[in-house]
Amino acid sequence: MAGDRIIATYWIETSHPLEFAAEVMAGEQSCGTFVRVPGETAELRERHAARVERVTELEIVDAPSLPHSTSPENHDGGFKRAEVELSFPLANMGASLPNLLSTVCGNLYELREFSGLKLIDLKLPRAFAEKYPGPQFGVAGTRRMAGVEGRPIIGTIIKPSVGLSPEQTAELVKTLIEAGLDFIKDDELMANPPHSPFSARFAAVSRAINDYAERTGKKPMYAFNITDELDEMLRHHDEVFSGGGACIMVSLNHVGAPAVAHLRRHSQLPIHGHRNGWGMLTRAPYLGVEFRAWSQVWRLAGVDHMHCNGLRNKFWEPDESVVASARACLTPLFEDKPCIAMPVIASAQWAGQAVDTYREIGSADLMYVCGGGIVAHPDGVAAGVLSVRQAWEAALAGVMLEDYAATHRELQRALEKFGP
Amino acid sequence: MAGDRIIATYWIETSHPLEFAAEVMAGEQSCGTFVRVPGETAELRERHAARVERVTELEIVDAPSLPHSTSPENHDGGFKRAEVELSFPLANMGASLPNLLSTVCGNLYELREFSGLKLIDLKLPRAFAEKYPGPQFGVAGTRRMAGVEGRPIIGTIIKPSVGLSPEQTAELVKTLIEAGLDFIKDDELMANPPHSPFSARFAAVSRAINDYAERTGKKPMYAFNITDELDEMLRHHDEVFSGGGACIMVSLNHVGAPAVAHLRRHSQLPIHGHRNGWGMLTRAPYLGVEFRAWSQVWRLAGVDHMHCNGLRNKFWEPDESVVASARACLTPLFEDKPCIAMPVIASAQWAGQAVDTYREIGSADLMYVCGGGIVAHPDGVAAGVLSVRQAWEAALAGVMLEDYAATHRELQRALEKFGP
Repeated sequence: MAGDRIIATYWIETSHPLEFAAEVMAGEQSCGTFVRVPGETAELRERHAARVERVTELEIVDAPSLPHSTSPENHDGGFKRAEVELSFPLANMGASLPNLLSTVCGNLYELREFSGLKLIDLKLPRAFAEKYPGPQFGVAGTRRMAGVEGRPIIGTIIKPSVGLSPEQTAELVKTLIEAGLDFIKDDELMANPPHSPFSARFAAVSRAINDYAERTGKKPMYAFNITDELDEMLRHHDEVFSGGGACIMVSLNHVGAPAVAHLRRHSQLPIHGHRNGWGMLTRAPYLGVEFRAWSQVWRLAGVDHMHCNGLRNKFWEPDESVVASARACLTPLFEDKPCIAMPVIASAQWAGQAVDTYREIGSADLMYVCGGGIVAHPDGVAAGVLSVRQAWEAALAGVMLEDYAATHRELQRALEKFGP
Repeated sequence: MAGDRIIATYWIETSHPLEFAAEVMAGEQSCGTFVRVPGETAELRERHAARVERVTELEIVDAPSLPHSTSPENHDGGFKRAEVELSFPLANMGASLPNLLSTVCGNLYELREFSGLKLIDLKLPRAFAEKYPGPQFGVAGTRRMAGVEGRPIIGTIIKPSVGLSPEQTAELVKTLIEAGLDFIKDDELMANPPHSPFSARFAAVSRAINDYAERTGKKPMYAFNITDELDEMLRHHDEVFSGGGACIMVSLNHVGAPAVAHLRRHSQLPIHGHRNGWGMLTRAPYLGVEFRAWSQVWRLAGVDHMHCNGLRNKFWEPDESVVASARACLTPLFEDKPCIAMPVIASAQWAGQAVDTYREIGSADLMYVCGGGIVAHPDGVAAGVLSVRQAWEAALAGVMLEDYAATHRELQRALEKFGP
C-alpha cells in the first residue's frame, strides 16, 4: 500500500545498466546486498525490500561526474543518467526522522556503482505527520506576532555580523526599528560569543524594542540566534520567551533534526530556520540532496521560517532553484497537516526583486530580508524600508516597478541607486 | 595569539586572484563583506576579522569543477586551485561546536567566487577541550569492556540489515558469539522499527549474551543502535545500561553534534559512531569537508568509536583516504586531552586486509568488523573468526599472510576462498 511506503526520488549517474544500479541502491538501503545472506528469506524480502518503482532514462555522458566509481572496463557505453524512484516500507524504520535519513541519505552515497547520486524528492507516509509537530506558528502566527498582514514581512540582518557589543547592537536596532522594519535578525555568526554574550545582547536589544513598542504600539519581531548545545538553546529560548521576545533562530544543519524537534516541543516562539552549510549538501549538481526533499525534515521537526536565498542573490544559486525552494516550503506536506514554513528571501535583496519574486513564487507569505538594499538607500534607512514596501505594493497591484516609481520617490531613488 | 584562534584549512578553486578569493572567504565568515558597513570600524576589524594566514598555489584548470561560479569574463586565466589557511578569533563564536560549524562550514560554500571549496583541516584552541567532554571510554575503556587486549576487536554486523524479528536477531547473535566474536553491532538501518522494537530486541539479544557470559565468563560487546529523537535515545541508553549492555550506537550525521554531546554527558556506555551519510559531505573532491576536520567535532562531542571504512572496501573510497581517516582518529587533538576515537574498520573486510591495515594505519587499536568475510568462511563462522584472528597475529608478528597460513588452516581456507 502506497500510504505505508516512503517514496524517495533520486537523480543518478552510473556506468552500469540502470535497472541493475537501481536494484543496488534498493538492496543497500533495505534488507539485502547482492549476496544473499542466511536469514534473507523470500518472506523477509517480500515484507522489507525497497522497491524500484520507476527508472526514467536521461542523457548519457562520456566522463563520470564523481571519481572512483566502478572502473571503466565495467561500463557498457558511457555514464547513464536517470531519475529513479524507490519505495521503502515504513515498517523498516518507523516514523523517525533520523532513521529515515539513515535510509534515504545513508550509505548509498558511498556506492562505487554510482558516479552521481542526489536525493531530489521525498514523499512521506502520514505516520510522520502524526509523530512530528510541524511548525507551531507558521505564516498566520508569525504575521500576528509581527503585526504584518497582506504583504511580506520586511526585515534586515544585524551587520557587521560579528564584533558589535550588546549595547552597539541595541543602538543599531533602535535605528532599524525607527526606520519601520518589521523584522530583524541576528547574523548566523552571532549566537553567544564572549564579546556579545547572549543574555546581555537579549537584554539590551529587548529594551530598545520594548521602548519603541510602548511609544508606538508596534512591536517588531527580532530573531535571536540561540544556536548552541541543547541546554543552552532551551535556556536561551526561555530567556527570550519570558523576556517578551518574539522569535528564536537556529542554524539547522549544525544542530541537527532531533535538537530542532526537541526545541520545538519545548518552544513557545516561532523558530527561524537558518540553513548555513546547505551549499555543502547541494552545490555539487550530482551529489547530495535537493531542497524540496531536505526541507521536509525541518518542516516536520517544527521550523516556522525557512531560509531560501533570493532572486539575483550574491551567492551561486540560480533563480530557478531559489523559486523552487520557496514554492516547496509553501506546498503542503500533508492535506490535513500542511507544515508550511514561511520562506525567508534574503541575500542582496532590495526593492528591485519584489515584482519578479511575487510573480515567480506566487505568494506574499514571505519574509523579505534586505541588508544594504535598505540601509544603504541614498535617503537613509527609513526611505530604504519605504522603497521595499512600495515595491511590494507594486508587485501586489500588478504594476511595473518603473511605473509605480513615477509616483513613489523612495522607490524611484532605490531604482536609481541599485538598479541596472 | 595563535592559541586563541581557530585555524581552518581549505582547498579552493576560483577564477579570481587567489588573495582576493581568500579575503572574500575571510570577510564572509567574520565581520565584513567587501562593502564596509557602518559600525565596521578599524578597531572592530582588528579584533574580529578572520585572517588569511597562508595561500599555497596549486594547479590551474580550464573548467570550473562546480557550476555557477563567477562568469568566465571575470577570470584572469583559468580556474586556480590553492590551499588556503584562515584563522578566526575564538572570541567570534566561543567554544561552541554548532557555532564553530556556522563559521567554518557555513555560508562560504555558497560563495559564487568559488568553483570548488572544501574544508580539509581544523586546529582548535584549548577552550574546546575545556568545554567538551571527549570520549568517555576510548580505546582503553572499550578494550576493558570487550575483554580484548593486544589486537583489534573483531566484530560483525547483524545481516540482513532489516527484517529480522527480535527473536531471530537473538538466534543469530547466539551463533555469532559462540563463534568467538568480540563485538557485534546493529546495522545502521536497524534502530527502533515496528518489526523489531528496540526494547524487545535489546531484551532478546541481552538474554543470549548473558547466557553465554554466564557459561564462559566472556561477554562480547554489542552496539545497540539507539539513533532516534533525543528522549528516545536517552531512554534507550538507560535501558541498555541498566540491562547490563555494553555499547550504544548512533548515526552521527542524522542526529547532530548537540544531540551527541547531550547523550555523552548522560551516557555511562561507549558511544559507537556511525557515519552513514558521510559520502554526501565528502565524495565530491571539490566540495564539502575532509574527515580529519569533520571527525574532530564528533570526537570532542564524545564519540568513542568512529567508522572509517576499510582497505579495499566495497564503496567508492580509495585506501589512502581510509588510512588517513583512521590515523586522524588516533592522532591526539590536544596534548593533555587527546580525544582518541577507536577507528572502526569495516566494509568488505576479511583476513586478507589485516597485514596491510596494520602496516598502513600503524596501530592495532582498531575495531575490525567483517560481514561475509567471517560468516561466509567455508568452514563456518567460528573458522571465519579464527581466520581473522590469525591474520592479525601475522600482522602483529610481521609475518606475511601466506607464510602464516601455511601453519594456520582457517587462514589458509579464507585465503583460498576470498583471496585474489
